[in-house]
Amino acid sequence: MILSNMIKRPRGTRDFVPEVMEKRKFIEKILRRRAEIYGFREIGTPTFEDIRLFTMRSSESIIKEMYDFKDKGDRHLALRPELTAPAMRMYIEEMQSYSKPLKIFYFGNCFRYERPQMGRYREFWQFGVEIIGAEKSMAEAEVISLACDCISSSGLQDYNLRIGHIGILMDILRDADVPHDKIRSLMTLIDKKDMECLKKEIRSMGGNYGQIEESLNEGIPNKYMDRYEDFKRMLYYLDNLGIKEYTLDAGIARGLDYYDGTVFEVDVDKLGAEKQICGGGTYSLLELFGGEKLLTTGFGIGFDRLLMAIEKTSDMSIPTRKIKYFIIPLEEKFRKYALSLITRLRCADVPCDLDISGRSLSKCMKYAHVIGSENVIIIGENEINEGKYTVKNMISGVQKMMTLDEIIES
Amino acid sequence: MILSNMIKRPRGTRDFVPEVMEKRKFIEKILRRRAEIYGFREIGTPTFEDIRLFTMRSSESIIKEMYDFKDKGDRHLALRPELTAPAMRMYIEEMQSYSKPLKIFYFGNCFRYERPQMGRYREFWQFGVEIIGAEKSMAEAEVISLACDCISSSGLQDYNLRIGHIGILMDILRDADVPHDKIRSLMTLIDKKDMECLKKEIRSMGGNYGQIEESLNEGIPNKYMDRYEDFKRMLYYLDNLGIKEYTLDAGIARGLDYYDGTVFEVDVDKLGAEKQICGGGTYSLLELFGGEKLLTTGFGIGFDRLLMAIEKTSDMSIPTRKIKYFIIPLEEKFRKYALSLITRLRCADVPCDLDISGRSLSKCMKYAHVIGSENVIIIGENEINEGKYTVKNMISGVQKMMTLDEIIES
Repeated sequence: MILSNMIKRPRGTRDFVPEVMEKRKFIEKILRRRAEIYGFREIGTPTFEDIRLFTMRSSESIIKEMYDFKDKGDRHLALRPELTAPAMRMYIEEMQSYSKPLKIFYFGNCFRYERPQMGRYREFWQFGVEIIGAEKSMAEAEVISLACDCISSSGLQDYNLRIGHIGILMDILRDADVPHDKIRSLMTLIDKKDMECLKKEIRSMGGNYGQIEESLNEGIPNKYMDRYEDFKRMLYYLDNLGIKEYTLDAGIARGLDYYDGTVFEVDVDKLGAEKQICGGGTYSLLELFGGEKLLTTGFGIGFDRLLMAIEKTSDMSIPTRKIKYFIIPLEEKFRKYALSLITRLRCADVPCDLDISGRSLSKCMKYAHVIGSENVIIIGENEINEGKYTVKNMISGVQKMMTLDEIIES
Repeated sequence: MILSNMIKRPRGTRDFVPEVMEKRKFIEKILRRRAEIYGFREIGTPTFEDIRLFTMRSSESIIKEMYDFKDKGDRHLALRPELTAPAMRMYIEEMQSYSKPLKIFYFGNCFRYERPQMGRYREFWQFGVEIIGAEKSMAEAEVISLACDCISSSGLQDYNLRIGHIGILMDILRDADVPHDKIRSLMTLIDKKDMECLKKEIRSMGGNYGQIEESLNEGIPNKYMDRYEDFKRMLYYLDNLGIKEYTLDAGIARGLDYYDGTVFEVDVDKLGAEKQICGGGTYSLLELFGGEKLLTTGFGIGFDRLLMAIEKTSDMSIPTRKIKYFIIPLEEKFRKYALSLITRLRCADVPCDLDISGRSLSKCMKYAHVIGSENVIIIGENEINEGKYTVKNMISGVQKMMTLDEIIES
């Protein structure tokens, strides 16, 4: 082995071997299916975008961790760090004429240059949905119920849904004498639950930290709830949609300053520090990118973390690939029968494989076992003379003679 | 609209609206399914790689058109221009211990900075398969039959398969007095079918261009066929796999100098200049990347071109999304019944949607029509009193009263 030739996978990225890919595809399919059941339709956007799409409104940490580069035409581009801004850009360019409410979803890879660690990769996948231009409370209830459905349909039962409201959070801060123009600057600290830092900041602004702490500890105090009829209506809708298990938490800030209205997050405690697997809410982003003012409600699920959570907490069995028959011609001269047989089986949509190495029967049996074939079909002199093939079940060991038609119909 | 805020999609890339995405997903699913039926399993590799993976053995045109950049750790990376080299790199890092023959496939996006034109995009998709470590003739027949199956299962009937052999091409050149060490340099010209340039080059090398032209015009002359028993055996296997329509063409060079053995291409004439939708063959790439010497046989299908070809030549109808019921509460007070009903329908895996804008009945009916809902369910005073809902078929206009259980079971 020439070591100098060994080129490695870039740090922080992953290869997916077939066993892993099968799991990913299986869960991906469930998410797609649930979104479709809820009337959402899939869209796709490019892997890279004009960098300004992300620098315009993203939080500083996202910008610092971006993969950006100039193309050969000197355009400043970035590999997408998230999928909401591209979806909004696409809506403005391609979908403004679609009937509202417009319900879309996407599944794609995103990129952040960060220190690789458990649950954090430089290339990771996100599944997200957006409702553009609906009545706010109904849209919020709809996306929260879809988020819960996606997560539980993936086999994960042990998760916590927390629901808050940006308006209420701002009221709590204002009522505790935090100056209005300083409120947005505190959102990142609240989002990170960095209470020590928050206390210091609020006190330096002349705010009453004790009062804020007390309010946040209550979840959402009643007097604030009463100010937001649309939020109460949203919770009533959620109840009718069967979503009854959640915590009210005024301390959800989502870190981004274009959120407006309900916000929510889903945590899986067993994941430890990286426990958040989903976040969403209502925001007003379209007009920032040059579109008309329309509210959007959506969520993003961190697909890689969802998978980690499923593996840690669920005993869901994920179906692996099935090969129904592995066909073994005993000699080269019988290969043509094997080829005709496999052509007919494959036309009939039966997953099957055949020896393509010209190996001995025992080696072929071993290989058929390794690839998980349910049966082997052996073709030799007797088989050709009788017009029947030997079919052996790899688990029971039972062996029988079957005609080609019998095999195809079985 | 603030024009300065309008950020556009990067040149040469595409957004996929739901109608287009549905087509893409439908064909993607067929390709995946056919590969699985043939015993192949999916893998995934990162979107970017160490640039040396591609500069080491790719043709010059690929290198010139690469999207390359340095990451924040000063690593020189490139967005993958093709998927074979990443698959080989991954095999060496992750899959050497898998039983041979190893049959893998992948579907992913690739990137080339080239002048955008019909059928050429800066981000495009490829579907490909590889068989690593099988007997050459059998593996070649297997991948050619899968390529044809993928293409025809996608609904495309009008395509041409051409099959050649790198050894035969080299023999033809050698027999016409082209110096051995110059042969590889001619491959690109042959690949491009640039006969004028080829003639000039060969004459300047002292070769007999007339003799080469004559040989190539014959497809593959018999005397060359007889030198390659494994190639003849491969054609015999193909015949038994039901692949009978193809042209023998010694002039297939595949442009890359690691091919070794059978090569093949699939064209769709109606696509014009960009008519090639698939190419493949046997090559020896693993040891270049530091692996053991093992032959690999595979193909790549240009997914975007396949789609273009299907649209131009096939009348295959692609199923679009189906919404079975659109639910309309006549007043806000009936919304809770709509929410309970839709929750039950969605649990039962029935695709449905509901009014989330609080619109009038006539506006809701219009929207239900636009999103293609098969039926609407209307919920009002009568419906609640009688415990039956009005279900109206949007095509026939037929209206009937149904209980919740009847709706779910229908």
